[in-house]
Amino acid sequence: MSLSMYQASVPVFIRTFDNLSAILHKAAAYAEARKIDPSVLINARLYPDMLPLSRQVQIASDNAKGAAGRLAQVERPAWDDNETTFDELQARIAKTIAFLKAIKPEQIDGSEERAISLKVGPNDLNFQGQAYLLGFALPNVFFHATTAYAILRHSGVDIGKLDFLGAMPT
Amino acid sequence: MSLSMYQASVPVFIRTFDNLSAILHKAAAYAEARKIDPSVLINARLYPDMLPLSRQVQIASDNAKGAAGRLAQVERPAWDDNETTFDELQARIAKTIAFLKAIKPEQIDGSEERAISLKVGPNDLNFQGQAYLLGFALPNVFFHATTAYAILRHSGVDIGKLDFLGAMPT
Repeated sequence: MSLSMYQASVPVFIRTFDNLSAILHKAAAYAEARKIDPSVLINARLYPDMLPLSRQVQIASDNAKGAAGRLAQVERPAWDDNETTFDELQARIAKTIAFLKAIKPEQIDGSEERAISLKVGPNDLNFQGQAYLLGFALPNVFFHATTAYAILRHSGVDIGKLDFLGAMPT
Repeated sequence: MSLSMYQASVPVFIRTFDNLSAILHKAAAYAEARKIDPSVLINARLYPDMLPLSRQVQIASDNAKGAAGRLAQVERPAWDDNETTFDELQARIAKTIAFLKAIKPEQIDGSEERAISLKVGPNDLNFQGQAYLLGFALPNVFFHATTAYAILRHSGVDIGKLDFLGAMPT
């Protein structure tokens, strides 16, 4: 079977969020065991003007939802970025995965040259589908998922790269 | 044009290392401007038992070289992980990119079901090519490149996500 736009996007995102969910469960357990207010972790940052853990999860979610929705040309739900607890972040991840799972391969396959436009801050970005996926969406999702991991690792949560990679695919 | 194994690997890795190179140049300039011994940044970590910046760059390099070489079924050069200066890390990135650029699309295209075996610590991992690329190699390269970024961001280097993403593809 040939690699396709669907296979390089939706299942990759789902794996990433499954793994991120497991990492956040470890973080919640760590907070409970150490009597750390969970909001300390949820608001933790690696630098004062860097976004905190909650925003890393939200932006990873937005990028995956945005990529799958735009490539499939389906409407994307708007979600408030109002998660402030681990349970709420888990719910955000769950609805991200549910949205991704509802998209069928045939909606995304063949989208290599599909015109994709998005606004990032003041900038209008225009891509073809493949460049958007490989040069923008995938790097963004991995960037924010890794940064969420790094914030928690820096905060002492006992996680390693295998938590980030998850069960090995075959 | 359909997405292919080559397009989802080699050019993605090259972009990532081009961007990482630019980030390391900013880090070197920051160290010089602030009179920080560069080795402080090169040995910086986000947690005492986490790998330092130099190792993040080396492991990102190893994963990209390993993925491209294994998928293309070409011999991979062995590189000592002995870089201790920004110039040496730049040279490591340059030879990683040179190795990647020498691989032709036809060497990797069609490798979706190619048997890939590697040893990670005590574990033998066996994949088909596509699962290896999407579930192991790409996440590893992005994980270590982002962690290198995060270490430098945490150390005060004036970088943002656009440095990580690089020039937008179209």
